[in-house]
Amino acid sequence: MAQAQKEFSVVGKRIPRIDGYERVTGQAQYTGDIQLPGMLYARVLRSSVPHAKIVSIDTSKADKLPGVKAVVHHQNAQIPWSSGGHTHRRFIFNNPVRYVGDAVAAVAATDRHIAEEALALIEVKYEKLPHVLDPNDALKPDAPKIGPDGNLSVGKGAFSAPIEEAWGNLESGFKEAERVFEDTYITKHVNNAQLERRVTVAKWDAGKLTVYASTQGVSNARTDIAKDFGLPLSRVRVVCKYMGGGFGNKNQAQDYDYMTAVLAKVCGQPVKLEFTREDDYIGMHGRWSSEQHYKIGVKKDGTITAVSLDAVTNMGAYRKQSGNLSGTDFYNIPNFKKSIKPVHTNTVVAANYRAPAYPQSVFGFASFLDQIAFELGVNPLDMFTRNRAQKYKTKIPFTSNHVEECIVEGAKRIAWSEKWHQPGASAGAKKHGIGMALGGYPFRPGLGAATIRVNSDGTAHVLVGVTDIGTGAKTTMAIIAAEALGIALNQIQLTNGDTDVTPYSVGESGSRTTPFTGPAVIAAAEDVRRQIFALAAGQLKVKPDELDLRNGEVFVKANPSQKIPLSRAVARAGELIGRATTNQSFKDMEGKSFAAHFAEVEVDTWTGHVKITRYVAAHDSGTIINPLAAESQIKGGVVQGIGMAFSEELLIDRLTAIPVNPNYRDAKVPTHLETPEVEVLFIEHYDSYGPFGGKVVGEPPITAAVATVANAIFNATGRRFKELPITPDKIVRAVRV
Amino acid sequence: MAQAQKEFSVVGKRIPRIDGYERVTGQAQYTGDIQLPGMLYARVLRSSVPHAKIVSIDTSKADKLPGVKAVVHHQNAQIPWSSGGHTHRRFIFNNPVRYVGDAVAAVAATDRHIAEEALALIEVKYEKLPHVLDPNDALKPDAPKIGPDGNLSVGKGAFSAPIEEAWGNLESGFKEAERVFEDTYITKHVNNAQLERRVTVAKWDAGKLTVYASTQGVSNARTDIAKDFGLPLSRVRVVCKYMGGGFGNKNQAQDYDYMTAVLAKVCGQPVKLEFTREDDYIGMHGRWSSEQHYKIGVKKDGTITAVSLDAVTNMGAYRKQSGNLSGTDFYNIPNFKKSIKPVHTNTVVAANYRAPAYPQSVFGFASFLDQIAFELGVNPLDMFTRNRAQKYKTKIPFTSNHVEECIVEGAKRIAWSEKWHQPGASAGAKKHGIGMALGGYPFRPGLGAATIRVNSDGTAHVLVGVTDIGTGAKTTMAIIAAEALGIALNQIQLTNGDTDVTPYSVGESGSRTTPFTGPAVIAAAEDVRRQIFALAAGQLKVKPDELDLRNGEVFVKANPSQKIPLSRAVARAGELIGRATTNQSFKDMEGKSFAAHFAEVEVDTWTGHVKITRYVAAHDSGTIINPLAAESQIKGGVVQGIGMAFSEELLIDRLTAIPVNPNYRDAKVPTHLETPEVEVLFIEHYDSYGPFGGKVVGEPPITAAVATVANAIFNATGRRFKELPITPDKIVRAVRV
Repeated sequence: MAQAQKEFSVVGKRIPRIDGYERVTGQAQYTGDIQLPGMLYARVLRSSVPHAKIVSIDTSKADKLPGVKAVVHHQNAQIPWSSGGHTHRRFIFNNPVRYVGDAVAAVAATDRHIAEEALALIEVKYEKLPHVLDPNDALKPDAPKIGPDGNLSVGKGAFSAPIEEAWGNLESGFKEAERVFEDTYITKHVNNAQLERRVTVAKWDAGKLTVYASTQGVSNARTDIAKDFGLPLSRVRVVCKYMGGGFGNKNQAQDYDYMTAVLAKVCGQPVKLEFTREDDYIGMHGRWSSEQHYKIGVKKDGTITAVSLDAVTNMGAYRKQSGNLSGTDFYNIPNFKKSIKPVHTNTVVAANYRAPAYPQSVFGFASFLDQIAFELGVNPLDMFTRNRAQKYKTKIPFTSNHVEECIVEGAKRIAWSEKWHQPGASAGAKKHGIGMALGGYPFRPGLGAATIRVNSDGTAHVLVGVTDIGTGAKTTMAIIAAEALGIALNQIQLTNGDTDVTPYSVGESGSRTTPFTGPAVIAAAEDVRRQIFALAAGQLKVKPDELDLRNGEVFVKANPSQKIPLSRAVARAGELIGRATTNQSFKDMEGKSFAAHFAEVEVDTWTGHVKITRYVAAHDSGTIINPLAAESQIKGGVVQGIGMAFSEELLIDRLTAIPVNPNYRDAKVPTHLETPEVEVLFIEHYDSYGPFGGKVVGEPPITAAVATVANAIFNATGRRFKELPITPDKIVRAVRV
Repeated sequence: MAQAQKEFSVVGKRIPRIDGYERVTGQAQYTGDIQLPGMLYARVLRSSVPHAKIVSIDTSKADKLPGVKAVVHHQNAQIPWSSGGHTHRRFIFNNPVRYVGDAVAAVAATDRHIAEEALALIEVKYEKLPHVLDPNDALKPDAPKIGPDGNLSVGKGAFSAPIEEAWGNLESGFKEAERVFEDTYITKHVNNAQLERRVTVAKWDAGKLTVYASTQGVSNARTDIAKDFGLPLSRVRVVCKYMGGGFGNKNQAQDYDYMTAVLAKVCGQPVKLEFTREDDYIGMHGRWSSEQHYKIGVKKDGTITAVSLDAVTNMGAYRKQSGNLSGTDFYNIPNFKKSIKPVHTNTVVAANYRAPAYPQSVFGFASFLDQIAFELGVNPLDMFTRNRAQKYKTKIPFTSNHVEECIVEGAKRIAWSEKWHQPGASAGAKKHGIGMALGGYPFRPGLGAATIRVNSDGTAHVLVGVTDIGTGAKTTMAIIAAEALGIALNQIQLTNGDTDVTPYSVGESGSRTTPFTGPAVIAAAEDVRRQIFALAAGQLKVKPDELDLRNGEVFVKANPSQKIPLSRAVARAGELIGRATTNQSFKDMEGKSFAAHFAEVEVDTWTGHVKITRYVAAHDSGTIINPLAAESQIKGGVVQGIGMAFSEELLIDRLTAIPVNPNYRDAKVPTHLETPEVEVLFIEHYDSYGPFGGKVVGEPPITAAVATVANAIFNATGRRFKELPITPDKIVRAVRV
């Protein structure tokens, strides 16, 4: 339902994290801080070969090591892992192993060092199978088969392959075109690289399992773990109170939570499984790499008439998520066809990473558009403005769309008209350039749930299932509750992330927290307000619907001085409780947050070093619930995009298939030195379908950043980089040509 | 509202504790098990003199002891203690000190031993004041004044004194009488003696206080602590997950929780305050002792025409609760007057202990009625039956009253008509006798709150604020939820006792848990059932009100084979939440559970030892929600009554005012050797005003037990014991006379 725009009391203020104190003082209990009596420590042994049958596992030496409580592997714990959606049957330990990093065994021991020592004592005999690392090779008929259906993994529904989509008439679109361009863009596997490594603590009490997990969705994790153990949902408790990031690495990925629970069951003691940074890089997943072949038809003024995209994405040994590419979404493409092949190779798994299907193909498509603009002699600003999406897939209206204002205001802020020059026209060894790209992310409402208890003194407790993965979701939910209830933020106490006590949450991924759970918080507040008004009506001698509640006071709308404190209304009831399960949706509409990013760079042609001298990110995310947190989100997303653009890549040794740089330093995650100051512009317009007019903030910033800096480098150097990362050596080589 | 009687699915079955596994395996985390990083240990220094001004406290030696973090006392922490209801201003440390045991100082240190060592290093100089130990002495005009208003402490409302009540016309009642009897009965101070000693852990995070307390009411504790610190309720969290008993010792007694929080604040670290058993006996409270003077007018057939009761009760140095005596409640007394004086003395505080105002005066009044029956030549069975209360205060109807059936069935079970003989007529050195008495406890509904979340698989989570003080309240609430929802008990997971996440609860004392929170659980179930039916109606193509839910299936009432599993109804919603705040009451009615107890004893006239050879407890508590737990309650209450009857007494040295036996062994808490097998008869009748027809179970059993065994001893020996405890030496002396 459309909502009227409102004046806000709390929403829109710059609010520091409500749990900031706990976080900065070390009081916050992250999963890694959980210590339980009798707790064991677990470590995982990983395959050292890319594809092999395990002929034998000899754990006798490990078993004898004092302190070792259990060694589990495919022979004694061949437990199917049903969760997370897979195209073929997967176990927590697989035989054959399918990549260097596949879990072979796990050890639980009385301390970490013994567990690690035990891993080294396990003797595994492999019978090597032929392997394939390159996705194009993997599609050849004689390629080693990784999945039961081969390497183009064909699952059902969201997991079907290839992923195909089309509208309009491609042929007539290309006929209509005055110029047709074709080219290929390549992106690499980058790791989510969240600060907090994966860690799980599992504990059994009678028939009940408690899992403390670093998870982007306690409800999802519970559902999956319950399913795998055949337990009712009420007998599995998943708790995540504080979290040091996930970026998609920790959703729909309960395999290791499950492994920990299996170990705890085998040992009859609580078990903590901790990943090393290397485990995080090779044992979990990163962003799928891609090879994108575009054919684009345009009019001479740059207007797109047709686009075809044929791509392969490398999903690694197992397919956990779609492998799609969606960077064309932000443009008006009258005739369109794409075919994406998510391919299996004997490499590290690829799956969700912030805006999973976007930065790869925004890089490819927006780089290519920028290139076509150059070829046509059109200013990129005009090219992007002209081709911006005005309706979804050319015809479905957006709930709100202010991308044009993002472009206009962003261009103004970075002084596009003064700064832009012909590509390569910058003189000297240090070349300056400017670039831009569009981005965004779908805004979709859905299932949410919340309860709110109003105490007898008018303060309140909010319960939501959301985990705060680092985004400030707790603060956002508290702000929404304070606004919806009509009390001050500091009167709100919020509990989250514990399936025993907090309501269902969809999972904190895909920028769903605010649009899914936000409306539930509002509805729970409305439920308790109704009860408050029913009580206060008697005290104020009016009808309940004549009342409103703001600033902790219940008052007669027609005569605001006729009022009582909220506490007086509630006191006699002891406490009032509001609850809501909501499932908002809109029909014949599409929701989307939009962004236009602009970067100015200085390229040192001698060293190949790129300095981002200015970065402007203009975002249409509807109402900004908390500008302080939203700005941080934008900045973080841009920094991740910069890492992907310039330096990050998980390198696999071609001979051994061993990942050679699975850590922050060697995989080159950007540091403060590589990070520009990001100027954030919020183009705020109330979206009638979002909670308090808000759309989504989390994913959009990363989508545009890679292409933006790549286009700025083109403007500076006149050289087009079609393969990520754009490392100094590539720049030096290209500029010297 | 009256409810129709129902067929039950879960209610009425013998259900083991839902948390039994955790309790017996040591997994249950009691307050004493809480360990927090950086936690300090606190100990309390208590006054060694009964009444004195503290001239000086020298803590310099204690301060210097390595490991000591804080020493607080009245000079540096004279913090008013406002909670718990007092007739005069009390601080957490008082000057003057008013009894041996009054808190003088508290120490927080890095370990327990250092804290204890530090106590010994504190040098306190007292200027002794005159003191008084006997309540009759304390009422004399020249007695040392303990409270500001003297020793008959006069507070407001429930704390006014003397406590006076009257109806009918006493004078004409005594005129109407054919015989008038007067006598005095005396009971002593006995400690609640719950297994778990008082323990509190307090922790501050920014402006928020978390208190893990062994408390009979997390909501009450929160309210009191928040008030004392001037904090909003949302900034205080009180948690109690498991508890080893309280019996009233741990309700409305947040003084030491508060002291712990003060220490934690001063130290900036979490603090755990642990009581020794001695602390529990002298630092907290026991049952008020009493001296009851009755004047009773009767017809020759035993019918009571008038009763007057003048009594003093010894409240010790501070008055925390009423000090009332209510044992006459179970009888039909047409003309009545009582005047109870709760008196201050320089002794250990007396306050609530299971059925606070009852066992003392049930002993006095039922002993005296038994005596009068003897004097009149009336069989006690007739005496009690004839004078049983049929209406409350002779005129207000009870919601249900089956005391007569209790008497009839209990008498039948113990074979009263065969076993009863003239008092003292038992031959030989070991004399047999039989006795009875009536008891019970008010059943009052009131404020309750609950939420129930139904998961997508049809299992459910119940959240209630109640602490399970040992009664099995968690199990009771889960049973009520399962019955009300229509699912199996093992599908329910219950969370309790945490003010951040669980709804308000009145406090688990006064047998209020089931009648207060039970209806809220039922109403929350109804709230979620409405939502389930709304969803299922579409699926089953009927109207919501045509549906019912039982055994986890939603079905059409008119055609039960037309059905879907609950999970299917809920799945699309993700989860459904029910909530309720209820405040049931009834008008012009009185609720009461009733009991008739019967005991058969063998008195060894040589040793004075009494062996209870048979004990029958017949109870009218309405529907019995869980017979297994209810039977345990009855047995436990009887055992406590036996302790009070035969052995327990906190002895105060007359010269020094020092309690000389503040521990289990010396205060003679009964062991298994003193404990008979108790045969429990539930006279089950649906009470239309209780949850599922249930009344109350917790307090009733202790009320009748003391008088029952005393009357059996009279029947065996022909000797009337008018002062508790009836110790072997008293028996031997009396029988020899």
